[in-house]
Amino acid sequence: MATIKDVAKKAGVSVGSVSRFINNFEVKPKTRLAIEKAIKELDYEPNIYARGFKVNKTNTIALIIPTVWNPFFGELAFNIEKSLRDYGMKMILCNSGNDYEIELQYITMAKQNKVDGIISITYSDVDKYVHSNMPIISIDRYFSEDITYVTSDNFEGGRMAAEELMKSGCKSIAFIGRGSKIDNATRNRKKGFVNYCEENHIHYEICDSLGESQNFKKKLDKFLYDNLKNVKKIDGIFTVTDEHAFKVIGKLNKLNVDVPEDVQIIGYDGIKSHNNDTIKISTIRQPIESIANESVKALINIINNKEIEKEIILPVRFIKGFTTK
Amino acid sequence: MATIKDVAKKAGVSVGSVSRFINNFEVKPKTRLAIEKAIKELDYEPNIYARGFKVNKTNTIALIIPTVWNPFFGELAFNIEKSLRDYGMKMILCNSGNDYEIELQYITMAKQNKVDGIISITYSDVDKYVHSNMPIISIDRYFSEDITYVTSDNFEGGRMAAEELMKSGCKSIAFIGRGSKIDNATRNRKKGFVNYCEENHIHYEICDSLGESQNFKKKLDKFLYDNLKNVKKIDGIFTVTDEHAFKVIGKLNKLNVDVPEDVQIIGYDGIKSHNNDTIKISTIRQPIESIANESVKALINIINNKEIEKEIILPVRFIKGFTTK
Repeated sequence: MATIKDVAKKAGVSVGSVSRFINNFEVKPKTRLAIEKAIKELDYEPNIYARGFKVNKTNTIALIIPTVWNPFFGELAFNIEKSLRDYGMKMILCNSGNDYEIELQYITMAKQNKVDGIISITYSDVDKYVHSNMPIISIDRYFSEDITYVTSDNFEGGRMAAEELMKSGCKSIAFIGRGSKIDNATRNRKKGFVNYCEENHIHYEICDSLGESQNFKKKLDKFLYDNLKNVKKIDGIFTVTDEHAFKVIGKLNKLNVDVPEDVQIIGYDGIKSHNNDTIKISTIRQPIESIANESVKALINIINNKEIEKEIILPVRFIKGFTTK
Repeated sequence: MATIKDVAKKAGVSVGSVSRFINNFEVKPKTRLAIEKAIKELDYEPNIYARGFKVNKTNTIALIIPTVWNPFFGELAFNIEKSLRDYGMKMILCNSGNDYEIELQYITMAKQNKVDGIISITYSDVDKYVHSNMPIISIDRYFSEDITYVTSDNFEGGRMAAEELMKSGCKSIAFIGRGSKIDNATRNRKKGFVNYCEENHIHYEICDSLGESQNFKKKLDKFLYDNLKNVKKIDGIFTVTDEHAFKVIGKLNKLNVDVPEDVQIIGYDGIKSHNNDTIKISTIRQPIESIANESVKALINIINNKEIEKEIILPVRFIKGFTTK
């Protein structure tokens, strides 16, 4: 395999010049051409570090998600890696567990050009560390005017859920969900749900909270007992995620409330897990593959200094499962 | 921030010398000392490529798995990344889809020192590309004497499954599972199952095949009909994975065969998926966290040229779910 010395010899320049060229120092145009020609002819393959020096690219991006050990994030990470590979790029995975410190480590990596960019799902408050000149795509989280974010159409999804519950015969419906204290696009699921109900004069209940899960657990137990066990006040539920839907179904089983006979449920995400074949709930399916592809495409464009939309909102669709009639 | 020029100035040597040093070319001991001293004093932080040259380490490893979009591999990837972080290392994720070509890309990366090592779950035949001098840990797959592999105690797990089925009242039991054509440690699950049955003079049936899934599907449908629907010949099943168990449960539902009343089922893996709260089968739980930690520990030791065991077998345990009495 050709070495830096071979390149210098063939180009008729010093090893120092080749090194300067590789290290992105100024070299005379004539020298540069000679070196580039020699590198090409010798098929000189500098390793990734050298290439890093040369084009200042690692061809690696970091994906920051709360945890890959989750059907939704698993599918997302799978598709992002797949999409990156089409661009010849590698993916470093970071399971942040929403840990602020861990997320900062990776943002710092990007600042130090150890990765070319970041695709991130974070609900922690890292705004001030993320600058508009850093190639970053935020999924579901709005940071600022400067930072592109990709999300499914949460508002329309919320409207769709309410509409589908009514279409399948519900009279009085509820939104259930716990969210992050940090504002993020998923909150629009509730807004869309409320918007549809008010537009159509439908009675609705809300059981939600932001942040800390302990209080919500108590709140939810009381809500389900009061509205479904003690007195049957509602007959339809839209949960902010499928995971919430599964939790609610579990609690309703214990209360001997039948799904979908007594209450119909629609989740959000449309997670498709390999071991989930035997249980399929009605849900608003996120276009996970599109979210992955659009995020990667947008990030590559930022890295290549191309202009891109600051807000990429992708359509959702309803999938009927056993939890609605 | 200090540059290569500052280092050269302080060390009283040429930029070329510093570059040669960083690029791992021979430099006079005296020069080397001066440069090292200057780098230290200036707290010169070469980026990852430079560091790569200097210590020839990327502090990055590649994890090759069929797909992270699967509860078992998702949990494994989560724990491997977590464990690597404790060593200050990053993880590049590769979803190979068992694609030979994709796996080779990453093995080539390792050969070119673009990653420090590989942790791999592959059933494709990449033996000849994997040399003993490459830092690699194989999970579940035996390559050769030279390559360390980490696995759960599949043989004992198979024995355990048979024993648990008998303990919960089964009379005649079956092993069901499709495996890769390439020999791998998971085959010992069947061997352990058979070993226990023969040792204890228990009647058993086998429904398995290697490779291609289409034939197995037909075979399995016929097997379940013949042994459970048409005539009830068996009352207990051990499946090679939980995924197989879920598939079998699905098929039995269609045949109106009740689990666990008509037939009890034990899977293997013990996958714990977030959305799986409402369905928990009896299974032989793999120590996924230990597999992750031991694999990382072993890989780090190989990278640091330490002696390690060539075979790391970790204990499994039975977890009772709703599919056994």
